[in-house]
Amino acid sequence: MPLMHDASVPTVTRALTNLISVLEKGAAHAEAKKIDPSVLIGSRLYPDMFPLSRQVQIAADIAKGGIARLAQAEAPKYDDNEATFAELVERVRKTIAFLESLKPAQFDDGARTVTFPVQKDTKTMPGARYLYTRVLPNVFFHCTTTYNILRHNGVELGKGDFLGPITD
Amino acid sequence: MPLMHDASVPTVTRALTNLISVLEKGAAHAEAKKIDPSVLIGSRLYPDMFPLSRQVQIAADIAKGGIARLAQAEAPKYDDNEATFAELVERVRKTIAFLESLKPAQFDDGARTVTFPVQKDTKTMPGARYLYTRVLPNVFFHCTTTYNILRHNGVELGKGDFLGPITD
Repeated sequence: MPLMHDASVPTVTRALTNLISVLEKGAAHAEAKKIDPSVLIGSRLYPDMFPLSRQVQIAADIAKGGIARLAQAEAPKYDDNEATFAELVERVRKTIAFLESLKPAQFDDGARTVTFPVQKDTKTMPGARYLYTRVLPNVFFHCTTTYNILRHNGVELGKGDFLGPITD
Repeated sequence: MPLMHDASVPTVTRALTNLISVLEKGAAHAEAKKIDPSVLIGSRLYPDMFPLSRQVQIAADIAKGGIARLAQAEAPKYDDNEATFAELVERVRKTIAFLESLKPAQFDDGARTVTFPVQKDTKTMPGARYLYTRVLPNVFFHCTTTYNILRHNGVELGKGDFLGPITD
């Protein structure tokens, strides 16, 4: 069983699908309250934290880069030039499409090592450890921070938007 | 292989260990800047969001409740009365000790179903799906929100505090 596929692709695709819902609620809030959407897109929780747009870009980058490594695939590169909610949603959609294009057979059970950049160095560890200690926490960090930035700005969101519907 | 053990206990123990580091940096910041620690502990990102103390309590509750279900064990119950950083850290430490007391043999490969409360109802799904779609996202959500509340209040934290050191 290609565990690394089953533990990563549905989990992260779901997180990104929920991220799209959160962004769409942000866009709807801006429209309803006649707020310039760029105010929300440029909002930060602290002056030296990244703004919402960068949080979304990084969530997508960790998702596609991290999971591509597990699949021994090449991740697509996107310009970091999204300036609207629609463009941010499109980046997330492209990322989901890439994840869904990966075939379970490209993955293993998590024993295969991956090498990834850390600042100016690289590190190598088993794929399972990489998924559970780096990729998943990091994707959820940036999805949560996007949610928190919008919540902090008064967008009506609940944790159900972050977790998504229970379909079973 | 008891996959549900390997995917859950080390992952969540690590998230909670990092949460302790984040809380300790919050406590040190309050002391250095002569801020009443209860100001940080009661801080929220929005008036109807939970304060930091509740974020930590929920992170611990999702961790012990969710993983206990996967192990068919009974989770300990804690009073929600922590009022200091030291007490919050202690709650997280007790939670880690509980997780580490669970034996791999109590877990399965993720096919066994779990039943969990959702508002006034219950839901049942395979353990693997429960771990990846509910437990892990939810634990990371509350750990990230704790980090974001402190960061928003000027505590000097970086994502390395959230992710923890790379030990391999």
